[in-house]
Amino acid sequence: MKQAISILTVGSELLDGRLQDTNAHYLTREFSQLGLKIQLILTCGDNEMEIGGALSYALQHSHQVIISGGLGPTADDLTREAVATFTKQRLLLDQQSLDLLKKRYIERKRIFDEANTKQALFPEGAEIIKNNTGTAPGFIARYGDKSIISLPGVPRELKAMFQESVLPYLKKTIGEIQSPQIKVLRIFGLPESFIGRTIDECLPPKEIEISYRAMFPEVQVILKGKEDPLSLNSFFTKIKNALKEEYIFSETLERNFEETVHALLIEHRLTVSTAESCTGGLVGKILSNTSGASAYFKGGVITYANDAKVRILQIHEETLKSEGAVSAAVAKQMAEGVQKIFNTDLAISITGIAGPEGGSKEKPVGSFFIGFSTKKETQAFSYFYAANRSGVRTYAAYTAIEAIRRHLLQLPPFVPPHSLV
Amino acid sequence: MKQAISILTVGSELLDGRLQDTNAHYLTREFSQLGLKIQLILTCGDNEMEIGGALSYALQHSHQVIISGGLGPTADDLTREAVATFTKQRLLLDQQSLDLLKKRYIERKRIFDEANTKQALFPEGAEIIKNNTGTAPGFIARYGDKSIISLPGVPRELKAMFQESVLPYLKKTIGEIQSPQIKVLRIFGLPESFIGRTIDECLPPKEIEISYRAMFPEVQVILKGKEDPLSLNSFFTKIKNALKEEYIFSETLERNFEETVHALLIEHRLTVSTAESCTGGLVGKILSNTSGASAYFKGGVITYANDAKVRILQIHEETLKSEGAVSAAVAKQMAEGVQKIFNTDLAISITGIAGPEGGSKEKPVGSFFIGFSTKKETQAFSYFYAANRSGVRTYAAYTAIEAIRRHLLQLPPFVPPHSLV
Repeated sequence: MKQAISILTVGSELLDGRLQDTNAHYLTREFSQLGLKIQLILTCGDNEMEIGGALSYALQHSHQVIISGGLGPTADDLTREAVATFTKQRLLLDQQSLDLLKKRYIERKRIFDEANTKQALFPEGAEIIKNNTGTAPGFIARYGDKSIISLPGVPRELKAMFQESVLPYLKKTIGEIQSPQIKVLRIFGLPESFIGRTIDECLPPKEIEISYRAMFPEVQVILKGKEDPLSLNSFFTKIKNALKEEYIFSETLERNFEETVHALLIEHRLTVSTAESCTGGLVGKILSNTSGASAYFKGGVITYANDAKVRILQIHEETLKSEGAVSAAVAKQMAEGVQKIFNTDLAISITGIAGPEGGSKEKPVGSFFIGFSTKKETQAFSYFYAANRSGVRTYAAYTAIEAIRRHLLQLPPFVPPHSLV
Repeated sequence: MKQAISILTVGSELLDGRLQDTNAHYLTREFSQLGLKIQLILTCGDNEMEIGGALSYALQHSHQVIISGGLGPTADDLTREAVATFTKQRLLLDQQSLDLLKKRYIERKRIFDEANTKQALFPEGAEIIKNNTGTAPGFIARYGDKSIISLPGVPRELKAMFQESVLPYLKKTIGEIQSPQIKVLRIFGLPESFIGRTIDECLPPKEIEISYRAMFPEVQVILKGKEDPLSLNSFFTKIKNALKEEYIFSETLERNFEETVHALLIEHRLTVSTAESCTGGLVGKILSNTSGASAYFKGGVITYANDAKVRILQIHEETLKSEGAVSAAVAKQMAEGVQKIFNTDLAISITGIAGPEGGSKEKPVGSFFIGFSTKKETQAFSYFYAANRSGVRTYAAYTAIEAIRRHLLQLPPFVPPHSLV
């Protein structure tokens, strides 16, 4: 039973439809990778009685309860009060935490508001968990031989504190955990249903557990094998071949799409510029997500209006008239135009219809063209992706950046296998 | 208490990280719109005892429990068994449901497996809920004067059955539903702790429920009043004055930050262009999030590299040398440069240090300058925001767009009140 864990997420915004919780799912995945079982997930409002009741129920069914949320400075943050009442401990001010909190405010050049003092209160005897990414510290309170682990609800802070403090604590408390073997595939451009069916057809051995995670527009496949690393490795190779390796951009949770392209561009010492229409700057934003991007990303032009395309990127007015702004010819000229302006090795461009307005029978919402220019040649590719405005824009931006990845790895141009859906 | 509802989601895949539940969030949103309160959300595994335990706990705290999942044909689908045991009813075969089920299989050209018969079993006396989009029907079982409403876990089926059958049932059962009065404040630029303390100092009446939601870089305040709309309105006015109205960009959940600026720009018939450095295109991306943005957003230039600033935006090399790329003078020249290129009424620019590298003692990571240009004059503002790379970029992009909002509303320039800058 020492390994049974429950999760309690606290917050009225989780009950009234304002917020979809993601912390519980994050924790279930983390524990699953450790081979630990989550017994129960509970969500209750910002109410001391309700938190106490949920805590009591969770502790009847598990040995460790992780609480997310309710540690902030406002009057509706009541987790510390509820845990103190439940464990029959007083709340005491921790001077060290208070000093740290004040120091954090000074570092950030913000005035320390007295309301924040609350964040340095802890149930007597609790172990304090430092928060290195935000303000509210967490804590571990004991309840008999069980633990109540309280973390802030802000996902970024919860994740960091979980990795830095809670995992080491649980490993110590629960004892040796046999970690399963894990293999990861991160894919852009194949639909989840196609990936699932392809993997099913590879006849997964029973001892391998497969999970899918759609993080639009990426799909992650996680394989977990408990005993036999050989069987896991050979099945991993099998599905990679079946899926076609060219669609797999990363095999580690530590390197995402833009970090993959970042590493490739730095390795090849090439520079890039961008010309964007319907994405409005999103390609440039993604290309500069990673620190050090200035080594390759010189800049770009956002030509949202047509006259800007003509004036700044030197798009021919005749082409605009004859082909339309959303066309392969314009995509090519955009890439060539921006490449000339920024004098870069590579250039990518996007022109398309993100919707919901602006579609036509020939070019429905979701149609877009990618231009891709090297020092030698310029190509354009036509795509269609049915989604809402935000979905079309994100997918189009990834498709443009995918052109760089494929070029640098000498892979064929990206073709979404529509026929395979 | 008739209005108190709990949700129980059943499925081991929700506890081991394979699946993020979305049904509970869907239901909370639906109920919130009706003014009904979700008391509690519980998630448990595919285990009859655990379902029964969770059900018992949920029924102690609410009048209606909605269960999602565990109605399928496989051995681990145990919701109907658990509900029957809990309500002390036998499971009976419903011939009509079985016939319908078989018909569904024939229509879909699939062979009816005898295992599926299970899906036509219901606790004695339960009201059956038809499933028009899938196979497993749902049911409503009575427990004293309380109800247990079971729906399949497939989101598409759950949603359809909820709309078609559960909503009408609840409206009938609960009777006239009194929607709560709701008031919303959406704020950019004030820290949550400051907002919380300011509202506390306004001494909220007991009948008003206040909740906060940090959706970085925005903070939402939701006030809910049950009986007296006058008291809610007067408290709402009081806190608006205390917080300073200029920081409140929206008073409705239907209009976010960019939609607010979108409406203002369209109303004033003004055009905008952007010059971005450290944000890499994020300002343009946000300005074009809303369909119809082409009415005002003409485009922008991303000058990630310094030489691009000089060549494209005509930044003076001497200014770059004497002041540095991250300076008020360069921010001004960037705004003026891009305004000239796109010939727009307004132009905004950002130059800053998003980190984690590139900071110095004088200009630490998180320092940035916003340039703002009208047809009459150009201004620059200096800011500092301590956060990780993504946080600095998002905050800086909002700050730039905030300059437009404040200009159009004739408000003073944005000053974060708790910053010592």
